[in-house]
Amino acid sequence: METIKHIGVLTGGGDCPGLNSVIRAVTKTAILDYNLDVIGFVDGFRGLVENNYMTLDLKTVSGIAHTGGTILGTTNRDNPFNFYSGGRTGQEPVDESDRAINNLQNLGLDAMVIIGGDGSLHIAHQFGQKGVRLIGVPKTIDNDLMATEVTFGFNTAVNTASDALDRLHTTAESHHRVMILEVMGRYSGWIALNAGISGSADVILIPEIPYRIDSIIKKISQRYRQGKKFSIIVVAEGAFPENGEIVVQNLVPTSHDPIRLGGIGQKVAEEIAGRLKDIEIRVTVLGHLQRGGQPIPYDRILGTKYGAGAVHALMEGQSGVMVSLQGSDITTVPIEEAIKDIRRVPPDDFMIKAARSIGITFGDN
Amino acid sequence: METIKHIGVLTGGGDCPGLNSVIRAVTKTAILDYNLDVIGFVDGFRGLVENNYMTLDLKTVSGIAHTGGTILGTTNRDNPFNFYSGGRTGQEPVDESDRAINNLQNLGLDAMVIIGGDGSLHIAHQFGQKGVRLIGVPKTIDNDLMATEVTFGFNTAVNTASDALDRLHTTAESHHRVMILEVMGRYSGWIALNAGISGSADVILIPEIPYRIDSIIKKISQRYRQGKKFSIIVVAEGAFPENGEIVVQNLVPTSHDPIRLGGIGQKVAEEIAGRLKDIEIRVTVLGHLQRGGQPIPYDRILGTKYGAGAVHALMEGQSGVMVSLQGSDITTVPIEEAIKDIRRVPPDDFMIKAARSIGITFGDN
Amino acid sequence: METIKHIGVLTGGGDCPGLNSVIRAVTKTAILDYNLDVIGFVDGFRGLVENNYMTLDLKTVSGIAHTGGTILGTTNRDNPFNFYSGGRTGQEPVDESDRAINNLQNLGLDAMVIIGGDGSLHIAHQFGQKGVRLIGVPKTIDNDLMATEVTFGFNTAVNTASDALDRLHTTAESHHRVMILEVMGRYSGWIALNAGISGSADVILIPEIPYRIDSIIKKISQRYRQGKKFSIIVVAEGAFPENGEIVVQNLVPTSHDPIRLGGIGQKVAEEIAGRLKDIEIRVTVLGHLQRGGQPIPYDRILGTKYGAGAVHALMEGQSGVMVSLQGSDITTVPIEEAIKDIRRVPPDDFMIKAARSIGITFGDN
Amino acid sequence: METIKHIGVLTGGGDCPGLNSVIRAVTKTAILDYNLDVIGFVDGFRGLVENNYMTLDLKTVSGIAHTGGTILGTTNRDNPFNFYSGGRTGQEPVDESDRAINNLQNLGLDAMVIIGGDGSLHIAHQFGQKGVRLIGVPKTIDNDLMATEVTFGFNTAVNTASDALDRLHTTAESHHRVMILEVMGRYSGWIALNAGISGSADVILIPEIPYRIDSIIKKISQRYRQGKKFSIIVVAEGAFPENGEIVVQNLVPTSHDPIRLGGIGQKVAEEIAGRLKDIEIRVTVLGHLQRGGQPIPYDRILGTKYGAGAVHALMEGQSGVMVSLQGSDITTVPIEEAIKDIRRVPPDDFMIKAARSIGITFGDN
Repeated sequence: METIKHIGVLTGGGDCPGLNSVIRAVTKTAILDYNLDVIGFVDGFRGLVENNYMTLDLKTVSGIAHTGGTILGTTNRDNPFNFYSGGRTGQEPVDESDRAINNLQNLGLDAMVIIGGDGSLHIAHQFGQKGVRLIGVPKTIDNDLMATEVTFGFNTAVNTASDALDRLHTTAESHHRVMILEVMGRYSGWIALNAGISGSADVILIPEIPYRIDSIIKKISQRYRQGKKFSIIVVAEGAFPENGEIVVQNLVPTSHDPIRLGGIGQKVAEEIAGRLKDIEIRVTVLGHLQRGGQPIPYDRILGTKYGAGAVHALMEGQSGVMVSLQGSDITTVPIEEAIKDIRRVPPDDFMIKAARSIGITFGDN
Repeated sequence: METIKHIGVLTGGGDCPGLNSVIRAVTKTAILDYNLDVIGFVDGFRGLVENNYMTLDLKTVSGIAHTGGTILGTTNRDNPFNFYSGGRTGQEPVDESDRAINNLQNLGLDAMVIIGGDGSLHIAHQFGQKGVRLIGVPKTIDNDLMATEVTFGFNTAVNTASDALDRLHTTAESHHRVMILEVMGRYSGWIALNAGISGSADVILIPEIPYRIDSIIKKISQRYRQGKKFSIIVVAEGAFPENGEIVVQNLVPTSHDPIRLGGIGQKVAEEIAGRLKDIEIRVTVLGHLQRGGQPIPYDRILGTKYGAGAVHALMEGQSGVMVSLQGSDITTVPIEEAIKDIRRVPPDDFMIKAARSIGITFGDN
Repeated sequence: METIKHIGVLTGGGDCPGLNSVIRAVTKTAILDYNLDVIGFVDGFRGLVENNYMTLDLKTVSGIAHTGGTILGTTNRDNPFNFYSGGRTGQEPVDESDRAINNLQNLGLDAMVIIGGDGSLHIAHQFGQKGVRLIGVPKTIDNDLMATEVTFGFNTAVNTASDALDRLHTTAESHHRVMILEVMGRYSGWIALNAGISGSADVILIPEIPYRIDSIIKKISQRYRQGKKFSIIVVAEGAFPENGEIVVQNLVPTSHDPIRLGGIGQKVAEEIAGRLKDIEIRVTVLGHLQRGGQPIPYDRILGTKYGAGAVHALMEGQSGVMVSLQGSDITTVPIEEAIKDIRRVPPDDFMIKAARSIGITFGDN
Repeated sequence: METIKHIGVLTGGGDCPGLNSVIRAVTKTAILDYNLDVIGFVDGFRGLVENNYMTLDLKTVSGIAHTGGTILGTTNRDNPFNFYSGGRTGQEPVDESDRAINNLQNLGLDAMVIIGGDGSLHIAHQFGQKGVRLIGVPKTIDNDLMATEVTFGFNTAVNTASDALDRLHTTAESHHRVMILEVMGRYSGWIALNAGISGSADVILIPEIPYRIDSIIKKISQRYRQGKKFSIIVVAEGAFPENGEIVVQNLVPTSHDPIRLGGIGQKVAEEIAGRLKDIEIRVTVLGHLQRGGQPIPYDRILGTKYGAGAVHALMEGQSGVMVSLQGSDITTVPIEEAIKDIRRVPPDDFMIKAARSIGITFGDN
């Protein structure tokens, strides 16, 4: 193994609060602890293919840890192994991975730190198999990555969603309305579950638990009889109801259709409206508000730990692994293991049990 | 004029942060300064018709000034002069104003404080003409009431919208996207204008200034050429573009259709997408988030001044007037004057001029 | 073991954001899952001795989960085993534990849930040894309880401190000042460490790491030479410097002297001022701001899990144990184990290492 | 009058949220509307004397409007007419105003925009009298400048103080304590008055209204008898009690002594503690937290209006004037008029009356 003297960093996939905390920690640890040179590729894997980069030094990363976004830019569609050079219009994708590796060599880079979610870590894994020395840093708003307890950005998104529920609560109660909040979570309900408990929701709908509209109606009606003329429903964008009950095949999860609004939140609203004639219903789709803004302290700290941990792992000779939070420690796991499946909410998770204990329904009873 | 010993309060129309500050101030001023008895009608004018009320004393209003919503409840469709007794299904409306006045007499109420927007103040004016002694308190998120400089709740809504822009900013920049935020403002652009300046928008679209999509495209393209690959657009829900350019007659302003999402924000997005093929666009509709949540200090203070001012005006023998902010003073104006028109953003307002000076476009050049 | 049908709850010790989330979860779980009756003792152990209590039902705990403080009240000086009946003036303390147990029996209570920190759990342990069936719920702002990974309230305090650092940062930089923020942490530096990393502090001083003023001066001077004319120092209230360097015996930790301000933060400022003549220094003591306000979502969720977990543990027949967070699960540990020592920051904790990697000094080098 | 082609900007005096909004607006308006060149002097008047400056262009001011502090730096002790060249140690001050004017000429600057409070505007006035063409922009946290309705930064400080009161409220109530919050306001009580109303204080002490400790004791006792075992007191740093009652000559207003904590807040606490033996009292001094952090939207907008207005006034040929908010318009007033006195809270201000109506005492009855 050669000595590492020069490393590169990139951020791939969707925006996530805390990216700049990681970039700062990677850069400072590399410079202060190991005296390395650091560069950052611009706009994720696109920069890697097109050799577009910037130098990262102590000055570049000063004052960024509490800011949202990423100073390096990112895209969530560029894959060097399947690359569209000029956008996606009228043209076949090409494998540009060798061009990327060539860039690494020409720049004299000994290793990479790749910050990304499921998709970016897949790409990282492929580069690892082609001999690139690298460490992955897990990033996903949805918190659905295997092999780490929490991903940075997730708790900021929960905060944003919980704050929205606090706002909807006061107005739902004043107006006797059913308020539906659609939050992120295409395959897993972590955001909906956490925000729902924090924001005192009455109903939480997640992809992991099949639900029936009847069960929601029952809850709303029961509350009404108890004098609570309003109800709060949180629904994860990927939480489609049980087969057979309502037709949902035309729905597109909100955050993946660039312009069209209205996914499952609106569908659930229509179903309820069809059965409870006299109640007013309102839908709010949080959308990209969940990806933006300053990271909360939890995510700044977690991002710092991941960033420092990634460089330490690299310098200890590791490669092809992802840094991972275990308790309060940072360890590493093979990237392969982290990407082999999505981490879903286990139906017997204690949080599900606690939510039921305080009267929240998941639409399944 | 009889001595006033017993007054009633109600909150009408849409929810608005600061209502509880007003209720507290009315109640405390009435009790502490004038030793009055106070009751509050439940759910706005519906409570007045159905004689549904609660006693308001120092204990009832303790600890509510910083909370969102209204402890009295509200509805935005009940009008005693045109009343649907059992919801709006299959039944003709009836004039129940005499029944309401009868309730006031039976309860021994000498006067009313009516907190509401344009619609509620219209109803108040009609009651005034039928001999009810009353004072109006102006309430509208949109800040579009004549005869007062600022309405409470407005600045809280601006904060919410500006905070959303801060969040969208970081993610727009990281991803090189055009982000469109649709905010409230059916007839006036005050929220869009204030939030847009505060949140560093590039384009602000308001009902008062006819705009062309071409002008927006020009701005986005110009920024792109300067290396700023993202743009932020704020659009008021009532800001339809100039006649002749795009067809908008099927659009329903967002907040007035109970379930359907997607109003002018989505329409603008589609228009831009049709002309700028390679740029990613995302739309967020803030909706009811703007009506909910804790009032910011500005609105707590303004609500307190309005509430205290309303009771003082009543005890000075005034009636049929609305309290109004003039500089830092509370004065009164005839309700009739306040409701005769909507207060729109004057095209030569200094804020428009200042916005243009810092490079914001209104789509009209 | 008798069947449990009626339980009591109390909150003891210093205020902590999240107490109401726990109270809500205990009450709802007890009623909804097990059909128990629940009462809450008012003002902690004082209510237990003086038989001062209130009924807790679904209505009492509705809408409290996101609020700060405790609806039950608390005191941090009342100990039934050493009880001052009328305040602490001119009177000997008495053992009133039997009177307390008598109250439990007269009220027909089968078990207790005691929410408190080190001191309250000591008392709980003593009651357990006298045969009272009970479960402890760990509460401490400082996060220094053994046998649980995180205590509720801690992350809210970190948020408050980190937000204060963000504010001090802008003004420190504009004015070229050294800003010192004194935060809670009498025996442990968890708040200082977390807030310092999150808020981009340059120096963190904690009780676990002996520090020298010289080392702080070196850091400030080094930054000055790099053109950074400001520095941010976070100091835990219990972080006294290494023996021999400065005399500190007259200092009283801030939050424990009812009125006197100025503890170690001020002392450190004076020491720096004595050596760096031309630099401006400002001290801020956060004090009780850290205990107040709404709990952040993390603590609302953790409080809910603890509260539900406590009742489940009780109904499974456990007693004399404290609920404890292990990963994302709630388990139980003997109270005895939880109180036998304070949980301090291990000098080799990964967070210390990460902080050093990004250039933060602990004043020890 | 020569045509203006090149202008300079500086920020003087204490830090204030919104300075960067003003700098951005001045720069953008100058460049976009009038095609001027703009430079900013570094560290206020010190930069003017020492010819230390930076170019301000569209890129420099991009993304700063929502940030706290000032990108130009500031000091609150440098006066070109009475200048200490090397700090304040062991050396006589010199009049360096001609050197400053010489710098302006050498740089080819046609006019200046000077953003500052009372002190900085005094200096501006002197430069005006020596022939420098300039416009002043009013800046003071305390809101105590004559000739403008509101200064930017003030409402952000009120928010910070009100938020602190919200936090203290929950913990005061849980613990039955008297909580005292000392806020800024050396000569005027605007922050204390506004924050006190917003944050539901029971007692507000301001410099404009002489108060007696007895009156505070009466209020606390009265609340205690009504079952409210806690009280919240806000005190402006300059609010010394009526002569004759307690000795205050050794107290130094908090924010003006660089290190020493504890001003009038602590003194009031000691006085109360001396008379109410059994009640617990806690003091919090907000200090520099009030000057730091992001400006709220109100101040970003006001700063933008002032900045744009200043440049427009300059280009209309005005000089020696200060921009001023009158209603929602920006006008100008002679600087001379603005600095001839402090704007104090009039004892008959409607806000004082409203505060009394809701039961707040000012310690004078």
